Amino acid sequence: MLNETYRGMLNHKSVIRETFMYGKQHAAEIGYENVFDYSLGNPSVPCPPQFTLAMQNLLDTEEPVDLHGYCPSQGDPGFRTAVAKHLAKTFALPYQQKHIFPTTGAAGAIAHAIRAVTQPGDEVLTFAPYFPEYGPYVEGTGAHLKVVPPQAPAFQPNLDAFEQMLTEKVTCVLINTPNNPTGVVYSAETLTRLAELLAEKSRAYGHTIFLVSDEPYRDIAFDGKAVPYPAAFYPHTLTCFSFSKSLSLPGERLGYVAVRPGCEGEDILVDMMAQISRFTGHNCPPSIIQRAVSRCLNVTSDLSVYETNMNLLYDKLKALGFEVERPGGTFYIFPKALEEDANAFCMRARQYDLLLVPSDTFGVKGYVRLAYCIDTEKVERSLPALEKLAASYRR
Amino acid sequence: MLNETYRGMLNHKSVIRETFMYGKQHAAEIGYENVFDYSLGNPSVPCPPQFTLAMQNLLDTEEPVDLHGYCPSQGDPGFRTAVAKHLAKTFALPYQQKHIFPTTGAAGAIAHAIRAVTQPGDEVLTFAPYFPEYGPYVEGTGAHLKVVPPQAPAFQPNLDAFEQMLTEKVTCVLINTPNNPTGVVYSAETLTRLAELLAEKSRAYGHTIFLVSDEPYRDIAFDGKAVPYPAAFYPHTLTCFSFSKSLSLPGERLGYVAVRPGCEGEDILVDMMAQISRFTGHNCPPSIIQRAVSRCLNVTSDLSVYETNMNLLYDKLKALGFEVERPGGTFYIFPKALEEDANAFCMRARQYDLLLVPSDTFGVKGYVRLAYCIDTEKVERSLPALEKLAASYRR
Repeated sequence: MLNETYRGMLNHKSVIRETFMYGKQHAAEIGYENVFDYSLGNPSVPCPPQFTLAMQNLLDTEEPVDLHGYCPSQGDPGFRTAVAKHLAKTFALPYQQKHIFPTTGAAGAIAHAIRAVTQPGDEVLTFAPYFPEYGPYVEGTGAHLKVVPPQAPAFQPNLDAFEQMLTEKVTCVLINTPNNPTGVVYSAETLTRLAELLAEKSRAYGHTIFLVSDEPYRDIAFDGKAVPYPAAFYPHTLTCFSFSKSLSLPGERLGYVAVRPGCEGEDILVDMMAQISRFTGHNCPPSIIQRAVSRCLNVTSDLSVYETNMNLLYDKLKALGFEVERPGGTFYIFPKALEEDANAFCMRARQYDLLLVPSDTFGVKGYVRLAYCIDTEKVERSLPALEKLAASYRR
Repeated sequence: MLNETYRGMLNHKSVIRETFMYGKQHAAEIGYENVFDYSLGNPSVPCPPQFTLAMQNLLDTEEPVDLHGYCPSQGDPGFRTAVAKHLAKTFALPYQQKHIFPTTGAAGAIAHAIRAVTQPGDEVLTFAPYFPEYGPYVEGTGAHLKVVPPQAPAFQPNLDAFEQMLTEKVTCVLINTPNNPTGVVYSAETLTRLAELLAEKSRAYGHTIFLVSDEPYRDIAFDGKAVPYPAAFYPHTLTCFSFSKSLSLPGERLGYVAVRPGCEGEDILVDMMAQISRFTGHNCPPSIIQRAVSRCLNVTSDLSVYETNMNLLYDKLKALGFEVERPGGTFYIFPKALEEDANAFCMRARQYDLLLVPSDTFGVKGYVRLAYCIDTEKVERSLPALEKLAASYRR
């Protein structure tokens, strides 16, 4: 018999995907260049040339049996060592090979990290607004996702509500900075207080509460500011990273879990995640990609276009009177809709060929997400459409 | 708190891996060339040059944003169509794009296929001897693996015992042909009778019993004989394939599930498997590998070395009086040990620098597996060691 759970999910349509599909259809009618599609978070800049060169060099020089052979179940040792060195240098924490578990993107990283530090039935807390895939990632482990309500307009985590919800059932907290969908970077002050609460409650309950930090946008930071690194604030942190955005390689599925040195279980967590892979059919990420990326850890794609686009949109939205927080990173911005119902607002935006995503899908009402990983020229041409949309609410 | 299940697994040592690690250590003492390591099923021949050329060509000519971009959650459409055409031509069944779900190797394929066609608590039957990773693959879905006892010496599935065990709780049957560890190819007669039993019991119980067929060794067939294709015998078949062996790409993690045309749920099973991926952090396999392999579906590595090795070993084992079934494919052979305790036999074999795997790990007692994916020259040099081992039992 077909599995009822997964079969039932086929009827739940993703609003992001529905918007994207509408955009494709609309583009066929009025031309691709005339649809201002802010729906999907797909990198729009190419990978750095170093990655292509590394791939070509590996194919030209390595023995195929070695290059394409099985990895150990903990991943390619060279990649793990290179990542550990890179993190140690960047964040001044003594990461070693044993702390690094390569995964198929951040999705694989989060799924493994949470399975490793929870028992079925445990609660995992996250902060609204949040990436909706956290739902399946967490529920798939047997733990339950509970969402701390949002704190507008700055969208730093709501730590008062968090403290109330941080009961004995909670064994793991999942954060995302820089944040999808808001673009907000969690401040050092936020992370300090968050770490204090985690330490205090861990002591009170007699068990370690782990922090899983999802950071695929870490390298997309604006205004020349560094993004505070959560693992630097709290020792029991599993950092989840993906090269999808930093190196513009989303289709090649490479990421990692980095177990913070000093974390409870630091000597066995990677071995445990290798065991978890056997149960999910996850496997190691591809060998050649691990080896090529290990040569590119000190470079990124040219990510400056995202800051250019952010400034254009932020300035225009502010000028039009939108309530909006200035993003500190990512390629998202999260203004308040001009009417209470974000879905209705997004439907009206379509009349101006603007494709936005209503915030309901991120666990917040009344906002919209714009993913500005598109050409700057198109962002510029979209500004009059934003003007018209705003004007339609002043009539 | 660290997850107790996965933590507990760290104490369960894999006998295959332990044997391999012993071999590495022993090689450091007496020289790699002097250890006859038959423990690991790692391809020993390079990928075909067409794969390397396809990779180089993609890197040279494609726009990186397209080449390395996100796949749809059902996988790369070009790869799916190419696989469907290849299967349709090879097996004269009307496979279409909608039937193909790309996965990270056969492990991902089996994990997805079984999740899709079972509910938690269902029973999945497989036949001893069987690949031990079937345990975690099946248990990870929430279903339970039950093992039909073996049928020596030919090691065709024991269909009388199977019929007894095929109760109403069984919703899925998992088979593996050509078989790891025996090298036996399931005969057309076996598959005909298996299909009859599945159809009969499906009718009796009022639910379809699905067949999941694991076929990573399909292209390694001996004596010029074709391997009977299970999906041709039974419509409700999900075929799991990996390019690890056919193209010698085990580290690049590419495989697929092929839903047989006419299978129950054929229009939705791939969409369901895309949903399943969200819960396990599996994701699509890497984009560039899907695109390169779709250009190599009509070629394989030079797999003839495995047949050469098989003949050398089979002839020697028979000459030495071993009870052994002649393999029809794979790179495994499965002789009966010369004493009741296969573990003791393998320990004695180590005295002659022969590394064999005892059959207990495959759900059968008293046999050993030899993985002869090593250089022919080494197989030849190992034959005197086999002679000495056999002679030691005649003293």
